[in-house]
Amino acid sequence: MRKVTIVGMGMMGASFALALKRAGIAESVAGVDMQSTVLETALQQGIIDSAATNIDLGVREADIVVIATPVCTVMKLLPALDELRYNGIIIDLGSTKQAICEVAENFPSLRFVGCHPMAGSEIPGINGAKATLFDDAPVIITPSDDAEPALLTQVIRLWQALGSRVTVMNPAEHDFSVALISHLPYLSAVITMNTAAELAQHNPEVFSLIAGGFRDTTRVSEGDPVMWRDICLTNRTHILTAITKLKAWLNNVEQALQSQDANLLQNIFQTSQNQRRTYIPRKKSIIK
Amino acid sequence: MRKVTIVGMGMMGASFALALKRAGIAESVAGVDMQSTVLETALQQGIIDSAATNIDLGVREADIVVIATPVCTVMKLLPALDELRYNGIIIDLGSTKQAICEVAENFPSLRFVGCHPMAGSEIPGINGAKATLFDDAPVIITPSDDAEPALLTQVIRLWQALGSRVTVMNPAEHDFSVALISHLPYLSAVITMNTAAELAQHNPEVFSLIAGGFRDTTRVSEGDPVMWRDICLTNRTHILTAITKLKAWLNNVEQALQSQDANLLQNIFQTSQNQRRTYIPRKKSIIK
Repeated sequence: MRKVTIVGMGMMGASFALALKRAGIAESVAGVDMQSTVLETALQQGIIDSAATNIDLGVREADIVVIATPVCTVMKLLPALDELRYNGIIIDLGSTKQAICEVAENFPSLRFVGCHPMAGSEIPGINGAKATLFDDAPVIITPSDDAEPALLTQVIRLWQALGSRVTVMNPAEHDFSVALISHLPYLSAVITMNTAAELAQHNPEVFSLIAGGFRDTTRVSEGDPVMWRDICLTNRTHILTAITKLKAWLNNVEQALQSQDANLLQNIFQTSQNQRRTYIPRKKSIIK
Repeated sequence: MRKVTIVGMGMMGASFALALKRAGIAESVAGVDMQSTVLETALQQGIIDSAATNIDLGVREADIVVIATPVCTVMKLLPALDELRYNGIIIDLGSTKQAICEVAENFPSLRFVGCHPMAGSEIPGINGAKATLFDDAPVIITPSDDAEPALLTQVIRLWQALGSRVTVMNPAEHDFSVALISHLPYLSAVITMNTAAELAQHNPEVFSLIAGGFRDTTRVSEGDPVMWRDICLTNRTHILTAITKLKAWLNNVEQALQSQDANLLQNIFQTSQNQRRTYIPRKKSIIK
Protein backbone atom coordinates (compact mmCIF):
# COMPACT_ATOMS: atom_id res chain seq x y z
CA MET A 1 0.00 0.00 0.00
CA ARG A 2 1.23 3.47 -0.74
CA LYS A 3 -0.73 5.55 1.72
CA VAL A 4 -2.84 4.61 4.75
CA THR A 5 -4.86 7.34 6.47
CA ILE A 6 -5.92 6.81 10.06
CA VAL A 7 -8.74 8.99 11.35
CA GLY A 8 -8.42 9.39 15.12
CA MET A 9 -5.02 9.41 16.84
CA GLY A 10 -6.21 7.87 20.12
CA MET A 11 -4.86 4.69 21.69
CA MET A 12 -6.28 2.48 18.92
CA GLY A 13 -5.47 4.69 15.93
CA ALA A 14 -1.93 5.40 17.08
CA SER A 15 -1.36 1.70 17.86
CA PHE A 16 -2.56 0.85 14.34
CA ALA A 17 -0.08 3.36 12.88
CA LEU A 18 2.77 1.89 14.97
CA ALA A 19 1.79 -1.67 14.00
CA LEU A 20 1.72 -0.70 10.29
CA LYS A 21 5.20 0.80 10.56
CA ARG A 22 6.55 -2.22 12.41
CA ALA A 23 5.12 -4.55 9.74
CA GLY A 24 6.59 -2.32 7.01
CA ILE A 25 3.54 -2.65 4.77
CA ALA A 26 2.70 1.00 4.09
CA GLU A 27 4.80 3.54 2.24
CA SER A 28 3.33 6.36 4.30
CA VAL A 29 0.90 6.73 7.17
CA ALA A 30 -1.22 9.87 7.53
CA GLY A 31 -3.07 10.87 10.68
CA VAL A 32 -6.28 12.88 10.93
CA ASP A 33 -7.42 14.26 14.28
CA MET A 34 -9.38 17.27 15.49
CA GLN A 35 -6.66 18.08 18.03
CA SER A 36 -3.58 19.52 16.37
CA THR A 37 -1.49 18.98 19.53
CA VAL A 38 -2.13 15.23 19.27
CA LEU A 39 -1.06 15.31 15.62
CA GLU A 40 2.13 17.18 16.56
CA THR A 41 2.96 14.52 19.13
CA ALA A 42 2.28 11.76 16.60
CA LEU A 43 4.54 13.44 14.04
CA GLN A 44 7.31 14.12 16.57
CA GLN A 45 7.27 10.51 17.78
CA GLY A 46 7.36 9.21 14.19
CA ILE A 47 4.00 7.50 14.61
CA ILE A 48 2.74 9.15 11.39
CA ASP A 49 4.41 10.72 8.35
CA SER A 50 1.85 13.42 7.63
CA ALA A 51 -1.06 15.02 9.44
CA ALA A 52 -4.32 16.83 8.76
CA THR A 53 -7.07 18.20 10.96
CA ASN A 54 -9.43 17.98 8.01
CA ILE A 55 -10.71 14.66 6.67
CA ASP A 56 -10.99 16.03 3.12
CA LEU A 57 -7.25 16.73 2.98
CA GLY A 58 -6.29 13.69 5.02
CA VAL A 59 -7.85 11.00 2.85
CA ARG A 60 -6.59 12.31 -0.52
CA GLU A 61 -4.69 9.59 -2.39
CA ALA A 62 -5.10 7.13 0.47
CA ASP A 63 -5.37 3.47 -0.55
CA ILE A 64 -7.12 2.74 2.71
CA VAL A 65 -8.82 4.80 5.40
CA VAL A 66 -8.89 3.40 8.94
CA ILE A 67 -11.53 5.04 11.16
CA ALA A 68 -10.35 4.81 14.76
CA THR A 69 -12.88 7.04 16.53
CA PRO A 70 -15.71 6.44 19.00
CA VAL A 71 -18.60 4.54 17.38
CA CYS A 72 -20.98 7.50 16.94
CA THR A 73 -18.23 9.42 15.15
CA VAL A 74 -17.68 6.49 12.77
CA MET A 75 -21.40 6.74 11.94
CA LYS A 76 -20.93 10.41 10.96
CA LEU A 77 -17.70 9.87 9.02
CA LEU A 78 -19.12 7.26 6.63
CA PRO A 79 -21.62 9.71 5.02
CA ALA A 80 -18.82 12.30 4.92
CA LEU A 81 -16.54 9.91 3.01
CA ASP A 82 -19.38 9.12 0.59
CA GLU A 83 -19.88 12.86 0.08
CA LEU A 84 -16.16 13.14 -0.75
CA ARG A 85 -16.60 10.26 -3.23
CA TYR A 86 -13.71 8.46 -1.56
CA ASN A 87 -13.29 5.17 -3.42
CA GLY A 88 -10.48 3.37 -1.57
CA ILE A 89 -10.92 0.74 1.13
CA ILE A 90 -12.49 1.85 4.43
CA ILE A 91 -12.32 -0.07 7.68
CA ASP A 92 -13.24 1.00 11.20
CA LEU A 93 -12.06 -0.27 14.59
CA GLY A 94 -15.26 0.39 16.55
CA SER A 95 -16.39 -1.89 19.37
CA THR A 96 -19.97 -2.30 18.14
CA LYS A 97 -20.81 -3.21 14.57
CA GLN A 98 -24.55 -3.34 13.91
CA ALA A 99 -25.25 0.41 14.08
CA ILE A 100 -22.14 1.17 12.00
CA CYS A 101 -22.89 -1.47 9.35
CA GLU A 102 -26.49 -0.22 9.04
CA VAL A 103 -25.18 3.26 8.21
CA ALA A 104 -22.68 1.80 5.73
CA GLU A 105 -25.46 -0.06 3.90
CA ASN A 106 -27.05 3.29 3.04
CA PHE A 107 -23.93 4.18 1.04
CA PRO A 108 -23.42 1.24 -1.33
CA SER A 109 -20.55 2.89 -3.22
CA LEU A 110 -18.37 2.87 -0.08
CA ARG A 111 -15.92 -0.06 -0.08
CA PHE A 112 -16.36 -0.61 3.67
CA VAL A 113 -15.64 -3.57 5.98
CA GLY A 114 -16.39 -3.26 9.70
CA CYS A 115 -13.59 -4.53 11.96
CA HIS A 116 -13.17 -4.92 15.71
CA PRO A 117 -9.77 -5.83 17.13
CA MET A 118 -10.22 -7.44 20.56
CA ALA A 119 -7.37 -5.59 22.19
CA GLY A 120 -7.04 -2.38 24.12
CA SER A 121 -5.47 -0.54 26.99
CA GLU A 122 -6.89 1.21 30.02
CA ILE A 123 -4.59 4.14 29.14
CA PRO A 124 -6.58 6.25 26.68
CA GLY A 125 -5.06 8.53 24.07
CA ILE A 126 -1.80 8.44 22.20
CA ASN A 127 0.13 7.65 25.41
CA GLY A 128 -1.56 4.24 25.55
CA ALA A 129 -0.43 3.33 22.01
CA LYS A 130 1.84 0.38 21.33
CA ALA A 131 3.07 -1.36 18.20
CA THR A 132 2.35 -4.82 19.66
CA LEU A 133 -1.32 -4.18 20.51
CA PHE A 134 -2.67 -6.46 17.78
CA ASP A 135 -0.13 -9.29 18.15
CA ASP A 136 -2.05 -12.54 18.39
CA ALA A 137 -5.23 -10.56 19.15
CA PRO A 138 -8.55 -11.82 17.80
CA VAL A 139 -10.00 -9.43 15.21
CA ILE A 140 -13.66 -9.80 14.30
CA ILE A 141 -14.67 -8.58 10.84
CA THR A 142 -18.32 -8.12 9.90
CA PRO A 143 -18.53 -7.77 6.10
CA SER A 144 -21.88 -7.13 4.44
CA ASP A 145 -23.38 -10.10 2.59
CA ASP A 146 -22.57 -8.56 -0.80
CA ALA A 147 -18.99 -7.42 -0.04
CA GLU A 148 -16.58 -7.92 -2.98
CA PRO A 149 -14.37 -10.99 -2.37
CA ALA A 150 -11.26 -9.02 -3.38
CA LEU A 151 -12.03 -6.33 -0.78
CA LEU A 152 -12.51 -8.97 1.92
CA THR A 153 -9.25 -10.67 1.03
CA GLN A 154 -7.33 -7.41 1.24
CA VAL A 155 -8.77 -6.57 4.67
CA ILE A 156 -8.07 -10.05 6.05
CA ARG A 157 -4.50 -9.94 4.73
CA LEU A 158 -3.96 -6.54 6.31
CA TRP A 159 -4.91 -7.84 9.76
CA GLN A 160 -2.83 -10.96 9.29
CA ALA A 161 0.17 -8.80 8.36
CA LEU A 162 -0.29 -7.04 11.71
CA GLY A 163 -0.18 -10.38 13.52
CA SER A 164 -3.88 -10.75 14.34
CA ARG A 165 -6.24 -13.73 14.14
CA VAL A 166 -9.28 -12.94 11.99
CA THR A 167 -12.80 -14.22 12.74
CA VAL A 168 -15.78 -13.43 10.49
CA MET A 169 -19.24 -12.80 12.02
CA ASN A 170 -22.40 -10.98 11.13
CA PRO A 171 -22.85 -7.67 12.97
CA ALA A 172 -25.68 -8.90 15.25
CA GLU A 173 -23.75 -11.98 16.33
CA HIS A 174 -20.71 -9.75 16.95
CA ASP A 175 -22.65 -7.30 19.10
CA PHE A 176 -24.16 -10.06 21.24
CA SER A 177 -20.75 -11.69 21.76
CA VAL A 178 -18.94 -8.51 22.77
CA ALA A 179 -21.79 -7.52 25.11
CA LEU A 180 -20.81 -10.61 27.13
CA ILE A 181 -17.04 -10.68 26.85
CA SER A 182 -16.22 -6.97 26.72
CA HIS A 183 -19.05 -4.59 27.63
CA LEU A 184 -20.28 -6.63 30.61
CA PRO A 185 -16.83 -6.77 32.30
CA TYR A 186 -16.34 -3.04 31.63
CA LEU A 187 -19.63 -2.19 33.34
CA SER A 188 -18.80 -4.54 36.25
CA ALA A 189 -15.45 -2.78 36.66
CA VAL A 190 -17.16 0.64 36.59
CA ILE A 191 -19.77 -0.17 39.24
CA THR A 192 -17.17 -1.87 41.44
CA MET A 193 -14.82 1.13 41.27
CA ASN A 194 -17.64 3.62 41.89
CA THR A 195 -19.04 1.60 44.79
CA ALA A 196 -15.67 1.25 46.52
CA ALA A 197 -14.82 4.93 46.01
CA GLU A 198 -18.17 6.08 47.37
CA LEU A 199 -18.01 3.85 50.46
CA ALA A 200 -14.39 4.84 51.10
CA GLN A 201 -14.94 8.57 50.60
CA HIS A 202 -14.16 9.34 54.27
CA ASN A 203 -11.12 7.06 54.46
CA PRO A 204 -9.62 6.77 50.97
CA GLU A 205 -6.39 5.51 52.56
CA VAL A 206 -7.90 2.01 52.37
CA PHE A 207 -6.81 2.02 48.73
CA SER A 208 -3.18 1.84 49.87
CA LEU A 209 -3.98 -1.72 51.00
CA ILE A 210 -5.25 -3.11 47.68
CA ALA A 211 -3.85 -6.30 46.24
CA GLY A 212 -3.97 -7.63 42.67
CA GLY A 213 -7.67 -8.52 42.98
CA PHE A 214 -8.94 -4.96 43.20
CA ARG A 215 -6.38 -3.75 40.69
CA ASP A 216 -7.30 -6.32 38.05
CA THR A 217 -11.07 -6.34 38.60
CA THR A 218 -11.31 -2.55 38.13
CA ARG A 219 -8.55 -2.03 35.53
CA VAL A 220 -10.76 -1.40 32.50
CA SER A 221 -12.92 1.14 34.39
CA GLU A 222 -10.19 3.65 33.50
CA GLY A 223 -11.10 3.50 29.80
CA ASP A 224 -12.26 6.49 27.76
CA PRO A 225 -15.77 7.61 28.91
CA VAL A 226 -16.82 8.91 25.47
CA MET A 227 -15.77 5.72 23.70
CA TRP A 228 -17.68 3.62 26.24
CA ARG A 229 -20.73 5.89 26.13
CA ASP A 230 -20.98 5.30 22.37
CA ILE A 231 -20.46 1.55 22.77
CA CYS A 232 -23.24 1.31 25.33
CA LEU A 233 -25.67 3.45 23.34
CA THR A 234 -25.15 1.41 20.16
CA ASN A 235 -25.35 -1.97 21.88
CA ARG A 236 -27.97 -1.22 24.50
CA THR A 237 -30.32 -4.13 23.83
CA HIS A 238 -27.67 -6.81 24.30
CA ILE A 239 -26.12 -4.96 27.23
CA LEU A 240 -29.51 -4.61 28.94
CA THR A 241 -29.96 -8.39 28.59
CA ALA A 242 -26.59 -8.91 30.26
CA ILE A 243 -27.45 -6.42 33.03
CA THR A 244 -30.71 -8.26 33.77
CA LYS A 245 -28.77 -11.49 34.23
CA LEU A 246 -26.06 -9.75 36.24
CA LYS A 247 -28.71 -8.37 38.60
CA ALA A 248 -30.16 -11.87 39.01
CA TRP A 249 -26.75 -13.25 40.03
CA LEU A 250 -26.18 -10.31 42.36
CA ASN A 251 -29.58 -10.97 43.96
CA ASN A 252 -28.65 -14.64 44.40
CA VAL A 253 -25.51 -13.64 46.27
CA GLU A 254 -27.40 -11.08 48.37
CA GLN A 255 -30.14 -13.53 49.32
CA ALA A 256 -27.63 -16.25 50.21
CA LEU A 257 -25.84 -13.77 52.48
CA GLN A 258 -29.04 -12.46 54.06
CA SER A 259 -30.21 -15.98 54.87
CA GLN A 260 -26.66 -17.14 55.74
CA ASP A 261 -27.09 -19.99 53.28
CA ALA A 262 -23.59 -21.47 53.25
CA ASN A 263 -24.37 -24.13 50.64
CA LEU A 264 -25.91 -21.67 48.20
CA LEU A 265 -22.93 -19.30 48.54
CA GLN A 266 -20.47 -22.12 48.02
CA ASN A 267 -22.43 -23.33 44.96
CA ILE A 268 -22.38 -19.87 43.37
CA PHE A 269 -18.63 -19.64 43.94
CA GLN A 270 -18.05 -23.20 42.73
CA THR A 271 -19.93 -22.32 39.54
CA SER A 272 -17.68 -19.36 38.79
CA GLN A 273 -14.55 -21.37 39.54
CA ASN A 274 -15.70 -24.19 37.24
CA GLN A 275 -16.80 -21.87 34.42
CA ARG A 276 -13.61 -19.84 34.42
CA ARG A 277 -11.43 -22.96 34.50
CA THR A 278 -13.43 -24.40 31.61
CA TYR A 279 -13.61 -21.36 29.37
CA ILE A 280 -10.62 -19.16 30.16
CA PRO A 281 -7.33 -20.98 29.67
CA ARG A 282 -4.46 -19.88 31.90
CA LYS A 283 -2.01 -17.54 30.29
CA LYS A 284 1.47 -16.56 31.37
CA SER A 285 1.57 -13.16 29.77
CA ILE A 286 -1.61 -11.16 30.13
CA ILE A 287 -2.60 -8.93 27.18
CA LYS A 288 -2.64 -5.36 28.43
CA MET B 1 12.94 -19.30 65.64
CA ARG B 2 13.54 -22.98 65.96
CA LYS B 3 10.28 -24.42 64.71
CA VAL B 4 7.33 -22.86 62.85
CA THR B 5 4.19 -24.96 62.34
CA ILE B 6 1.83 -24.01 59.54
CA VAL B 7 -1.69 -25.42 59.74
CA GLY B 8 -3.16 -25.68 56.24
CA MET B 9 -0.95 -26.39 53.21
CA GLY B 10 -3.06 -24.46 50.70
CA MET B 11 -1.83 -21.58 48.54
CA MET B 12 -1.37 -19.25 51.52
CA GLY B 13 0.14 -21.74 53.98
CA ALA B 14 2.56 -23.20 51.44
CA SER B 15 3.55 -19.68 50.27
CA PHE B 16 4.24 -18.75 53.91
CA ALA B 17 6.46 -21.84 54.27
CA LEU B 18 8.37 -20.95 51.09
CA ALA B 19 8.77 -17.33 52.20
CA LEU B 20 10.11 -18.44 55.61
CA LYS B 21 12.66 -20.69 53.92
CA ARG B 22 13.72 -17.97 51.52
CA ALA B 23 14.17 -15.52 54.41
CA GLY B 24 16.14 -18.18 56.32
CA ILE B 25 14.54 -17.27 59.64
CA ALA B 26 13.27 -20.66 60.82
CA GLU B 27 15.33 -23.73 61.69
CA SER B 28 12.50 -26.01 60.67
CA VAL B 29 9.03 -25.67 59.15
CA ALA B 30 6.32 -28.19 59.93
CA GLY B 31 3.10 -28.57 57.95
CA VAL B 32 -0.26 -29.78 59.24
CA ASP B 33 -3.02 -30.69 56.82
CA MET B 34 -5.94 -33.11 56.75
CA GLN B 35 -4.88 -34.38 53.32
CA SER B 36 -1.80 -36.57 53.56
CA THR B 37 -1.25 -36.37 49.77
CA VAL B 38 -0.82 -32.60 50.07
CA LEU B 39 1.69 -33.10 52.89
CA GLU B 40 3.62 -35.60 50.77
CA THR B 41 3.82 -33.07 47.93
CA ALA B 42 4.98 -30.36 50.35
CA LEU B 43 7.68 -32.65 51.76
CA GLN B 44 8.82 -33.81 48.31
CA GLN B 45 9.09 -30.22 47.05
CA GLY B 46 11.04 -29.19 50.17
CA ILE B 47 8.32 -26.72 51.17
CA ILE B 48 8.24 -28.19 54.69
CA ASP B 49 10.66 -30.27 56.77
CA SER B 50 8.14 -32.36 58.70
CA ALA B 51 4.46 -33.14 58.43
CA ALA B 52 1.52 -34.19 60.56
CA THR B 53 -2.17 -34.78 59.86
CA ASN B 54 -2.89 -34.17 63.51
CA ILE B 55 -2.65 -30.72 65.09
CA ASP B 56 -1.67 -32.20 68.49
CA LEU B 57 1.50 -33.73 67.03
CA GLY B 58 2.14 -30.88 64.60
CA VAL B 59 2.34 -28.02 67.08
CA ARG B 60 4.61 -29.77 69.63
CA GLU B 61 7.70 -27.67 70.34
CA ALA B 62 6.65 -25.02 67.82
CA ASP B 63 7.70 -21.44 68.66
CA ILE B 64 4.92 -20.17 66.46
CA VAL B 65 1.81 -21.64 64.90
CA VAL B 66 0.51 -20.08 61.69
CA ILE B 67 -3.11 -20.94 60.92
CA ALA B 68 -3.61 -20.81 57.15
CA THR B 69 -7.10 -22.29 56.79
CA PRO B 70 -10.51 -20.93 55.79
CA VAL B 71 -11.87 -18.51 58.41
CA CYS B 72 -14.42 -20.87 60.01
CA THR B 73 -11.69 -23.47 60.51
CA VAL B 74 -9.50 -20.85 62.25
CA MET B 75 -12.44 -20.29 64.62
CA LYS B 76 -12.44 -24.02 65.50
CA LEU B 77 -8.65 -24.35 65.80
CA LEU B 78 -8.25 -21.60 68.43
CA PRO B 79 -10.28 -23.50 71.09
CA ALA B 80 -8.41 -26.68 70.10
CA LEU B 81 -5.04 -24.97 70.69
CA ASP B 82 -6.28 -23.69 74.05
CA GLU B 83 -7.34 -27.22 74.95
CA LEU B 84 -3.82 -28.40 74.06
CA ARG B 85 -2.44 -25.63 76.35
CA TYR B 86 -0.25 -24.46 73.46
CA ASN B 87 1.70 -21.46 74.78
CA GLY B 88 3.73 -20.26 71.79
CA ILE B 89 2.77 -17.44 69.43
CA ILE B 90 -0.29 -17.98 67.21
CA ILE B 91 -1.12 -15.98 64.11
CA ASP B 92 -3.71 -16.62 61.42
CA LEU B 93 -3.87 -15.49 57.78
CA GLY B 94 -7.65 -15.28 57.47
CA SER B 95 -9.35 -12.65 55.30
CA THR B 96 -11.84 -11.51 57.95
CA LYS B 97 -10.79 -10.62 61.47
CA GLN B 98 -13.72 -9.67 63.70
CA ALA B 99 -15.27 -13.14 64.07
CA ILE B 100 -11.83 -14.71 64.61
CA CYS B 101 -10.72 -12.11 67.18
CA GLU B 102 -14.00 -12.52 69.08
CA VAL B 103 -13.29 -16.24 69.44
CA ALA B 104 -9.70 -15.54 70.50
CA GLU B 105 -10.90 -13.19 73.26
CA ASN B 106 -12.66 -16.11 74.90
CA PHE B 107 -9.29 -17.80 75.39
CA PRO B 108 -7.13 -15.19 77.13
CA SER B 109 -4.20 -17.56 77.66
CA LEU B 110 -3.66 -17.88 73.89
CA ARG B 111 -0.87 -15.59 72.66
CA PHE B 112 -2.76 -14.74 69.46
CA VAL B 113 -2.46 -11.91 66.91
CA GLY B 114 -4.81 -11.85 63.92
CA CYS B 115 -3.07 -11.13 60.59
CA HIS B 116 -4.25 -10.64 57.01
CA PRO B 117 -1.71 -10.47 54.21
CA MET B 118 -3.23 -8.61 51.24
CA ALA B 119 -1.88 -11.00 48.62
CA GLY B 120 -3.19 -14.07 46.91
CA SER B 121 -3.47 -16.07 43.76
CA GLU B 122 -6.42 -17.29 41.73
CA ILE B 123 -4.72 -20.72 41.69
CA PRO B 124 -5.88 -22.44 44.88
CA GLY B 125 -3.92 -25.14 46.69
CA ILE B 126 -0.25 -25.90 46.95
CA ASN B 127 0.21 -25.41 43.17
CA GLY B 128 -0.54 -21.70 43.60
CA ALA B 129 2.19 -21.26 46.24
CA LYS B 130 5.13 -18.95 45.69
CA ALA B 131 7.97 -17.69 47.87
CA THR B 132 7.51 -14.10 46.68
CA LEU B 133 3.80 -13.83 47.57
CA PHE B 134 4.34 -11.44 50.50
CA ASP B 135 7.03 -9.26 48.89
CA ASP B 136 5.99 -5.65 49.32
CA ALA B 137 2.44 -6.80 50.16
CA PRO B 138 0.42 -4.88 52.76
CA VAL B 139 -0.25 -7.02 55.85
CA ILE B 140 -2.96 -5.86 58.25
CA ILE B 141 -2.58 -7.01 61.84
CA THR B 142 -5.47 -6.67 64.32
CA PRO B 143 -4.06 -7.16 67.85
CA SER B 144 -6.39 -7.11 70.84
CA ASP B 145 -6.20 -3.99 73.00
CA ASP B 146 -4.38 -5.87 75.76
CA ALA B 147 -1.85 -7.73 73.58
CA GLU B 148 1.64 -7.96 75.15
CA PRO B 149 3.98 -5.47 73.44
CA ALA B 150 6.68 -8.14 73.11
CA LEU B 151 4.26 -10.43 71.25
CA LEU B 152 3.27 -7.62 68.90
CA THR B 153 6.89 -6.75 68.18
CA GLN B 154 7.72 -10.34 67.31
CA VAL B 155 4.78 -10.65 64.92
CA ILE B 156 5.58 -7.34 63.19
CA ARG B 157 9.24 -8.35 62.81
CA LEU B 158 8.23 -11.70 61.34
CA TRP B 159 6.20 -10.03 58.59
CA GLN B 160 8.93 -7.49 57.93
CA ALA B 161 11.44 -10.34 57.58
CA LEU B 162 9.18 -11.77 54.86
CA GLY B 163 9.25 -8.44 53.00
CA SER B 164 5.76 -7.18 53.87
CA ARG B 165 4.48 -3.75 54.93
CA VAL B 166 2.59 -3.95 58.24
CA THR B 167 -0.51 -1.86 59.03
CA VAL B 168 -2.31 -2.06 62.40
CA MET B 169 -6.11 -1.79 62.57
CA ASN B 170 -8.90 -2.89 64.85
CA PRO B 171 -10.86 -5.90 63.56
CA ALA B 172 -14.02 -3.95 62.70
CA GLU B 173 -12.10 -1.32 60.72
CA HIS B 174 -10.25 -4.15 58.94
CA ASP B 175 -13.43 -5.98 58.00
CA PHE B 176 -15.04 -2.84 56.58
CA SER B 177 -11.93 -2.01 54.54
CA VAL B 178 -11.53 -5.46 53.02
CA ALA B 179 -15.25 -5.64 52.20
CA LEU B 180 -14.56 -2.75 49.81
CA ILE B 181 -11.14 -3.57 48.41
CA SER B 182 -11.23 -7.37 48.36
CA HIS B 183 -14.64 -8.98 48.91
CA LEU B 184 -16.53 -6.56 46.64
CA PRO B 185 -14.24 -7.13 43.62
CA TYR B 186 -14.38 -10.90 44.23
CA LEU B 187 -18.18 -10.88 44.14
CA SER B 188 -18.17 -8.63 41.04
CA ALA B 189 -15.85 -11.09 39.31
CA VAL B 190 -18.09 -14.02 40.30
CA ILE B 191 -21.33 -12.50 39.02
CA THR B 192 -19.63 -11.32 35.81
CA MET B 193 -18.20 -14.79 35.11
CA ASN B 194 -21.50 -16.52 35.92
CA THR B 195 -23.52 -14.08 33.81
CA ALA B 196 -21.26 -14.43 30.77
CA ALA B 197 -21.15 -18.22 31.06
CA GLU B 198 -24.93 -18.49 31.35
CA LEU B 199 -25.61 -16.20 28.39
CA ALA B 200 -22.96 -17.96 26.29
CA GLN B 201 -24.09 -21.47 27.16
CA HIS B 202 -25.19 -22.22 23.59
CA ASN B 203 -22.10 -20.69 21.98
CA PRO B 204 -19.20 -20.94 24.43
CA GLU B 205 -16.79 -20.38 21.51
CA VAL B 206 -17.23 -16.64 22.16
CA PHE B 207 -14.69 -17.10 24.95
CA SER B 208 -12.00 -17.71 22.34
CA LEU B 209 -12.36 -13.99 21.49
CA ILE B 210 -11.71 -12.53 24.95
CA ALA B 211 -9.11 -9.83 25.46
CA GLY B 212 -7.37 -8.70 28.66
CA GLY B 213 -10.50 -6.97 29.95
CA PHE B 214 -12.54 -10.12 30.48
CA ARG B 215 -9.49 -12.01 31.68
CA ASP B 216 -8.56 -9.45 34.33
CA THR B 217 -12.07 -8.54 35.46
CA THR B 218 -12.95 -12.18 36.20
CA ARG B 219 -9.54 -13.47 37.36
CA VAL B 220 -10.27 -13.73 41.08
CA SER B 221 -13.56 -15.60 40.47
CA GLU B 222 -11.38 -18.71 40.20
CA GLY B 223 -10.53 -18.57 43.93
CA ASP B 224 -11.33 -21.31 46.43
CA PRO B 225 -15.15 -21.53 46.96
CA VAL B 226 -14.87 -22.73 50.59
CA MET B 227 -12.44 -19.96 51.55
CA TRP B 228 -14.73 -17.35 50.01
CA ARG B 229 -17.87 -18.86 51.54
CA ASP B 230 -16.30 -18.44 55.01
CA ILE B 231 -15.15 -14.90 54.22
CA CYS B 232 -18.64 -13.88 53.12
CA LEU B 233 -20.38 -15.50 56.09
CA THR B 234 -18.06 -13.82 58.61
CA ASN B 235 -18.21 -10.38 56.96
CA ARG B 236 -21.81 -10.39 55.80
CA THR B 237 -22.89 -7.03 57.26
CA HIS B 238 -20.18 -5.02 55.54
CA ILE B 239 -20.52 -7.01 52.33
CA LEU B 240 -24.30 -6.49 52.29
CA THR B 241 -23.67 -2.73 52.60
CA ALA B 242 -21.34 -2.91 49.59
CA ILE B 243 -23.87 -4.98 47.63
CA THR B 244 -26.61 -2.41 48.27
CA LYS B 245 -24.38 0.32 46.85
CA LEU B 246 -23.30 -1.90 43.94
CA LYS B 247 -26.96 -2.50 43.06
CA ALA B 248 -27.58 1.26 43.14
CA TRP B 249 -24.74 1.87 40.67
CA LEU B 250 -25.94 -0.99 38.46
CA ASN B 251 -29.44 0.51 38.49
CA ASN B 252 -27.98 3.88 37.48
CA VAL B 253 -26.30 2.29 34.48
CA GLU B 254 -29.44 0.35 33.57
CA GLN B 255 -31.67 3.42 33.77
CA ALA B 256 -29.25 5.52 31.73
CA LEU B 257 -29.26 2.83 29.04
CA GLN B 258 -33.03 2.38 29.10
CA SER B 259 -33.60 6.12 28.69
CA GLN B 260 -30.62 6.47 26.29
CA ASP B 261 -29.27 9.21 28.53
CA ALA B 262 -25.86 9.83 26.95
CA ASN B 263 -24.79 12.45 29.50
CA LEU B 264 -25.64 10.29 32.49
CA LEU B 265 -23.75 7.33 31.02
CA GLN B 266 -20.72 9.48 30.26
CA ASN B 267 -20.81 10.93 33.80
CA ILE B 268 -20.88 7.48 35.39
CA PHE B 269 -17.92 6.42 33.25
CA GLN B 270 -16.07 9.68 33.90
CA THR B 271 -16.51 9.08 37.64
CA SER B 272 -14.91 5.64 37.49
CA GLN B 273 -12.05 6.92 35.35
CA ASN B 274 -11.40 9.81 37.77
CA GLN B 275 -11.66 7.65 40.90
CA ARG B 276 -9.36 4.95 39.62
CA ARG B 277 -6.77 7.48 38.43
CA THR B 278 -6.92 9.18 41.82
CA TYR B 279 -6.79 6.15 44.08
CA ILE B 280 -5.05 3.37 42.18
CA PRO B 281 -1.58 4.35 41.08
CA ARG B 282 -0.30 2.74 37.89
CA LYS B 283 2.01 -0.16 38.40
CA LYS B 284 4.33 -1.84 35.93
CA SER B 285 4.35 -5.27 37.56
CA ILE B 286 0.99 -6.45 38.78
CA ILE B 287 0.94 -8.51 41.99
CA LYS B 288 -0.50 -11.91 41.16
